[in-house]
Amino acid sequence: MIIGRILGTVVSTQKDERLLGKKLLIVKPINLDGTDQSGYVVAVDTVGAGFHEKVIVVGGSSARMAEGNKDCPVDSAIIGVIDTIDLTKEFDG
Amino acid sequence: MIIGRILGTVVSTQKDERLLGKKLLIVKPINLDGTDQSGYVVAVDTVGAGFHEKVIVVGGSSARMAEGNKDCPVDSAIIGVIDTIDLTKEFDG
Amino acid sequence: MIIGRILGTVVSTQKDERLLGKKLLIVKPINLDGTDQSGYVVAVDTVGAGFHEKVIVVGGSSARMAEGNKDCPVDSAIIGVIDTIDLTKEFDG
Amino acid sequence: MIIGRILGTVVSTQKDERLLGKKLLIVKPINLDGTDQSGYVVAVDTVGAGFHEKVIVVGGSSARMAEGNKDCPVDSAIIGVIDTIDLTKEFDG
Amino acid sequence: MIIGRILGTVVSTQKDERLLGKKLLIVKPINLDGTDQSGYVVAVDTVGAGFHEKVIVVGGSSARMAEGNKDCPVDSAIIGVIDTIDLTKEFDG
Repeated sequence: MIIGRILGTVVSTQKDERLLGKKLLIVKPINLDGTDQSGYVVAVDTVGAGFHEKVIVVGGSSARMAEGNKDCPVDSAIIGVIDTIDLTKEFDG
Repeated sequence: MIIGRILGTVVSTQKDERLLGKKLLIVKPINLDGTDQSGYVVAVDTVGAGFHEKVIVVGGSSARMAEGNKDCPVDSAIIGVIDTIDLTKEFDG
Repeated sequence: MIIGRILGTVVSTQKDERLLGKKLLIVKPINLDGTDQSGYVVAVDTVGAGFHEKVIVVGGSSARMAEGNKDCPVDSAIIGVIDTIDLTKEFDG
Repeated sequence: MIIGRILGTVVSTQKDERLLGKKLLIVKPINLDGTDQSGYVVAVDTVGAGFHEKVIVVGGSSARMAEGNKDCPVDSAIIGVIDTIDLTKEFDG
Repeated sequence: MIIGRILGTVVSTQKDERLLGKKLLIVKPINLDGTDQSGYVVAVDTVGAGFHEKVIVVGGSSARMAEGNKDCPVDSAIIGVIDTIDLTKEFDG
């Protein structure tokens, strides 16, 4: 899984019917020091995450294991809102 | 999922029979500011997208969950046409 | 899926028995302007492609959906020979 | 699989219920000479690994094959603690 | 699939029980001219490959289709020892 922060929303009317009612969020992957990585991913929110919250994102077929995503055409899902990231002292990267 | 815009079509006569009747489109991944990323992907259109429309593309095994792709040898599918991308104000990447 | 051209063949005698009789080809991914990308992939040919033909290559678990690959340990398969790639005029990448 | 060392822990209260009780660790991929690679991955610990231990990490759908991860929305799991890495003499990379 | 050469072995005692008896090898991906690529992968040997032999490596869920890997938490497997790589004349990359 990766860690990201929520940047925005994708709105689509003409879409696969199994996406109906799903919230598609734009997530920016972040480094462990909180800075942004390049790129982004569009992920289905399955835990009610809020804007700019740090979240855990699962990718690939496992995104379909997240709540409500069974058999859906999604490859990325938000599965947790992060409270804290605890790094050991000697980490510097 | 990623966001892309449709650039063109791939025409193939000699192909897997489960690709018969499928529309294979060339999609250019784009950044959140609308500029092109490098590279491209060939994706099956499952929502009737038009040229240059911004679309949502799902990859991997989940592409087979898109309408009509069950058990097909495809790893990328267009599953939505994008109306708008709403980014929060402070986004700058 | 990606587009590539066939560069050569991999010959292996000591191999998984489900690879017996399969043609393992070396495919070079190409850009939309026909130039080579870096890297290569070893893919199972399932459509009888010829050397230097432009082909469509599917990756991941979906490679097992290609003709004859069911339950085989393969992650890349050639599923189509390309006739033409039609790009819209304003494409420049 | 890749080799990494454990850097820290991710704490999340608001999460998919199938993550309850799972230990989410931050793993830094390392090179064969022991130096850090860039990036990180959040992986479920399934073998009781300790901080800074070198571990084997499996990714993708196979992470769900690790002990206790069946049908869980996880794409990365720690499946072994490494005792030694034996490289042949002529290796220099 | 990719082509690599075997560099060494990973020894792990504390591991997922479905890895018991499996040989975990370190494989260096190589270019078509035989030079090393950067990076490495830890793969399960399923064909009895020897050190420095050139091998075919399958990744992702298809690694579980290799002999003996059913339902195992592995994402990379050696499925063939390469005899020869035959490239057509005009190849230069």
